[in-house]
Amino acid sequence: MTSVFDSIDSTVFRSYCFWCAALVIKMLVMSVLTGLKRHAKKAFANPEDAKVNKVKVVNNDPDVERVRRAHLNDLENIPLFFAIGFLYILTGPSVSLAVNLFRIVGISRIVHTLVYAVVVIPQPARGLAWMGAYFPTWYMAVKVLLAFI
Amino acid sequence: MTSVFDSIDSTVFRSYCFWCAALVIKMLVMSVLTGLKRHAKKAFANPEDAKVNKVKVVNNDPDVERVRRAHLNDLENIPLFFAIGFLYILTGPSVSLAVNLFRIVGISRIVHTLVYAVVVIPQPARGLAWMGAYFPTWYMAVKVLLAFI
Amino acid sequence: MTSVFDSIDSTVFRSYCFWCAALVIKMLVMSVLTGLKRHAKKAFANPEDAKVNKVKVVNNDPDVERVRRAHLNDLENIPLFFAIGFLYILTGPSVSLAVNLFRIVGISRIVHTLVYAVVVIPQPARGLAWMGAYFPTWYMAVKVLLAFI
Repeated sequence: MTSVFDSIDSTVFRSYCFWCAALVIKMLVMSVLTGLKRHAKKAFANPEDAKVNKVKVVNNDPDVERVRRAHLNDLENIPLFFAIGFLYILTGPSVSLAVNLFRIVGISRIVHTLVYAVVVIPQPARGLAWMGAYFPTWYMAVKVLLAFI
Repeated sequence: MTSVFDSIDSTVFRSYCFWCAALVIKMLVMSVLTGLKRHAKKAFANPEDAKVNKVKVVNNDPDVERVRRAHLNDLENIPLFFAIGFLYILTGPSVSLAVNLFRIVGISRIVHTLVYAVVVIPQPARGLAWMGAYFPTWYMAVKVLLAFI
Repeated sequence: MTSVFDSIDSTVFRSYCFWCAALVIKMLVMSVLTGLKRHAKKAFANPEDAKVNKVKVVNNDPDVERVRRAHLNDLENIPLFFAIGFLYILTGPSVSLAVNLFRIVGISRIVHTLVYAVVVIPQPARGLAWMGAYFPTWYMAVKVLLAFI
């Protein structure tokens, strides 16, 4: 019996898995980064956490909010890659194109975090890093849409 | 050798892929929409962006916040569909039911964005559009839960 | 013809599907919880909703914000599990280890919501529940990264 997954190229699939795992780890690190900033700035969003640290609730610390914006931007973009990257593989793309798209998305999102929330670098650094994942995601989504219309 | 994916119906799977791609594109458009509103209203959340535009940081512009609430509502609902829609296919649902569920979820989420963030239409428009994706997602989740308990 | 999915163990996969469905349902419940709190406290974020209820827009009700923080924490963690849990299965883990990891993640995230947003319990309850999903997700991500490097 054959399945829709029989045609998956193993090089492409391995690359997808690798970059998914790398981006999952990158997103997990955001939680640590937020926690570190909250402790460094004594800026806690939960009354129970503020109480333990004997401070008042702070919801507008600029450093904490910067990390949270970077994290939210991840949430807006990276799960889309998890979903569409997988379906894109099923459209039978060229191996080198697919592997390079995954690589560009993965590296761009890592750079995005670095220039947004770790060492703040003036624009267009953040914008370019964002585009590096955004446009490949668009491309993959359009390919999937057309393949399964 | 057989796999758990051998039984996937190709009509159902194609419909799933199509609507996933459509919703990925819909979510990608939210970023453009947010960017357009930020520029139109000169309301930037990042100091470096505000500086380039020679304005102060604004975090409470009602039009920008509306688009962001619509986007957040997407984040709360659409990735759940990506995950549970895929697993629901593996429960061997009726083809027409599954295809119609995917269609209702996809169209509802697109309408939700239109009435929430593009042309604001009074309630219950937004509520109904939200339910159109919410209840089918519940149904699929319960079916998956019962199938794999 | 063989596919990358042929080696999936069905016990592990069923456990994955079950916990994904349970967590999708858990996240869907967050929307109900937010809605209930908004109505109980008359704290609506949308002008059109506030108007229907004849109140002003309220964006800082502590009970509503608590549920929203719990929900956001779900968004930061649970979709990562959906993605990496699936890929982790493909690395051919021991059945009992994989099933227990999925169980720990699932139960931890449910407990996290209960102690964060339903019955507020002092720390370290929330922190421990969060770790119960966080560290297994890290473990799975590293395993996938190393398997597909």
